[in-house]
Amino acid sequence: MNQVVPDPSPELLQRATDLRRHAVDLAQCTDQQRREALLFMADALHEQRDVIVAANAADRASAERDQLSPALMARLKLDGAKLDAAIAGLRQLAGLSDPLGQRQVHRALDEGLVLERVTVPLGVVGVIFEARPDAVIQIAALAIRSGNGAILKGGREANGSCTAILKALQQGLSHSVVHPDVLALLTSREESLALLKLDGLVDLIIPRGSNELVRFIQDNTRIPVLGHADGICHLYVDCSVELDQAVAVTLDSKTQYPAACNAIETLLVHRDVAEAFLAKAIPALEAAGVELRGDATAMALGVRHEASDDDWATEYLDLVLSIAVVPDLDSALAHISRHGSRHTEVICTSDASAAERFLSRVDSAGVYHNCSSRFADGFRYGFGAEVGISTQTLPPRGPVGLEGLVTYRYRLRGEGHLAADFATGARSFLHQDLS
Amino acid sequence: MNQVVPDPSPELLQRATDLRRHAVDLAQCTDQQRREALLFMADALHEQRDVIVAANAADRASAERDQLSPALMARLKLDGAKLDAAIAGLRQLAGLSDPLGQRQVHRALDEGLVLERVTVPLGVVGVIFEARPDAVIQIAALAIRSGNGAILKGGREANGSCTAILKALQQGLSHSVVHPDVLALLTSREESLALLKLDGLVDLIIPRGSNELVRFIQDNTRIPVLGHADGICHLYVDCSVELDQAVAVTLDSKTQYPAACNAIETLLVHRDVAEAFLAKAIPALEAAGVELRGDATAMALGVRHEASDDDWATEYLDLVLSIAVVPDLDSALAHISRHGSRHTEVICTSDASAAERFLSRVDSAGVYHNCSSRFADGFRYGFGAEVGISTQTLPPRGPVGLEGLVTYRYRLRGEGHLAADFATGARSFLHQDLS
Repeated sequence: MNQVVPDPSPELLQRATDLRRHAVDLAQCTDQQRREALLFMADALHEQRDVIVAANAADRASAERDQLSPALMARLKLDGAKLDAAIAGLRQLAGLSDPLGQRQVHRALDEGLVLERVTVPLGVVGVIFEARPDAVIQIAALAIRSGNGAILKGGREANGSCTAILKALQQGLSHSVVHPDVLALLTSREESLALLKLDGLVDLIIPRGSNELVRFIQDNTRIPVLGHADGICHLYVDCSVELDQAVAVTLDSKTQYPAACNAIETLLVHRDVAEAFLAKAIPALEAAGVELRGDATAMALGVRHEASDDDWATEYLDLVLSIAVVPDLDSALAHISRHGSRHTEVICTSDASAAERFLSRVDSAGVYHNCSSRFADGFRYGFGAEVGISTQTLPPRGPVGLEGLVTYRYRLRGEGHLAADFATGARSFLHQDLS
Repeated sequence: MNQVVPDPSPELLQRATDLRRHAVDLAQCTDQQRREALLFMADALHEQRDVIVAANAADRASAERDQLSPALMARLKLDGAKLDAAIAGLRQLAGLSDPLGQRQVHRALDEGLVLERVTVPLGVVGVIFEARPDAVIQIAALAIRSGNGAILKGGREANGSCTAILKALQQGLSHSVVHPDVLALLTSREESLALLKLDGLVDLIIPRGSNELVRFIQDNTRIPVLGHADGICHLYVDCSVELDQAVAVTLDSKTQYPAACNAIETLLVHRDVAEAFLAKAIPALEAAGVELRGDATAMALGVRHEASDDDWATEYLDLVLSIAVVPDLDSALAHISRHGSRHTEVICTSDASAAERFLSRVDSAGVYHNCSSRFADGFRYGFGAEVGISTQTLPPRGPVGLEGLVTYRYRLRGEGHLAADFATGARSFLHQDLS
């Protein structure tokens, strides 16, 4: 992606400015009003179900002609079942407690000088994604629930689906007190790029798509970016382990939905258990259609293909798995530290102390013991929906739900309080937390 | 600042790698061990008090010869009183509750599948500052308390002070279980720039200094930056107001420490009260040595100098104040939205509904009613110390204490749980919060 990011056109600037104004009004809406807006959106999606599914089928037919990769095709698909799940998620979100107006700090700094920290919306979020038209529903719903405007840009391949979805969402909003134009869909590639330059009008960019897309965005905007480029997740099978359970967790982590970022790409196996484990895992994985690429030891134990150095740093997003045999837990930790993307890593072990060492030493957003990496997801964590998964060190990290769209503001109310009185020692701070 | 950021030297890379290793060990220390390390640091600073104050006096003498600006000179100064206050802050920090190991989420996703979100250190922070040698103490203390390593780079003008302080801090650490090299001071300009390229070894950059310094850093690193470029704070005097209180708050907000980012730069006055208010405020401000620059109406009411368009967007960091007379509250809101830097804004009013409108509409990190802007500070908020003040939309914003140096990790412990069982409906999520 060697593109120059163009300056926003006057039309886009005007549109973003108007949208921001609508977002300020949205921020003043009550919890109930935002809930109702979500339910109207859900109803409208339900009414337009056939239209949306048909638009998606058309997008997919066209994508097939363009020979889109299987991973992208999987992400593009929005059949009735997936749409119903998205609508259910939207309704679930309406039922979640209000993320706004939460008082996180309430403290008397002095008699009559009271500090509060209260959650408020970010303002406007910009979302750029490839394929995954259901992301429009999730993001729009999260945005409205949390009092934010949203500017959305889908991939060309999902244009029909996204347009149909946004039309339904805006139709839903028109029955509520929220202005429908608090949501906008950009359709040209140029507008999408210019979105990156809307500093001051857009508060957060959320890219959902390929590593290449995410990296390009991270390198070409001053607006904060929430997301992740790579999802190179590891599963480590320790020497003390229930073999059948570990095989089942491996299989689920790799094959349950290989196009997802939380599927594993590399399997690390302790050498003391490698023979016994691989004797069961290799046939199971191959039966599920997984191509295995191993280091020398893994190949000696039956893995068919040789892994190159690149394999350890590759997110296949497909039915491919690299396998390395390691001498001990610390070697597994070192491998993860070197090649991991700090997304999600799993240890399968019946040794509690090995598990705790793994969970306290691996610096990924998610560290799991005896369960599938595929649980790394906002829905599954109980957030109702997710705006994305962040692999950054700073919060929010991991699957990010509503809290990723909310910030806070300090409010300080006094009675003429002066800093000088505290500097001179005439008064001193109470710092008393209030209930 | 038109400089090319050089690649880190092999020496710097090695040093940062070693420091990161020490930081990983520090992260495994107990709360008690980190508290003790802080107390040893405080003791050592106290013992080296005279050496440090003398080093600072030498730095200031040299800065005077170099004709540093008054604002920089004020920030450079570290006399005995300021040092004692920093040591007291360090001890206060040792007494604060542990920011690590806090469980923020504890939820059963299913029988035997338990999710936790637990706070952990960021890793290593890089701090770049001009003048303000006491920043070394604050940042080093916050870093150790929160289990992080720190790479510090002070301005050339504070080199003697910073070196003396770091030597004392490391001497203190040598009595604790924490490795003294978990703190490092960079002394050359080249190293300081190369710090910006230590992605993967440094998790957060905290710049403390001029707008120019902060902007340069923001534009030249991929590492997240915590801080603010401008601190253009406003105070708005509403039409219903206790005049004497408003004058006192204005005076404190401007003059109590004009070199600080939380001092006001612009005063907005409702026209209905402008004559009465300015009749009292102008003499009081002028008596305190403040140069006043006004719009036409303010000048007609006695302000001596004319404000240019640039004045409304200038952070003086000095005894200068721009004054505009506005027709109403909404005009004040519009002025702040156009010229403010989202740091801290104050309303002085006895009208509760005007105050609430201001507090809910101004999108700054701090919005204050009837008190000085100078309270925007980590110490004053009760955080023990601050790593900086952020004017970004995303959290952490405003004065940031320990929580700015802490992130979290999701831990999921299962018994062989598979995502497929939930996808097929064989199992469904509990999402039950545990006590």
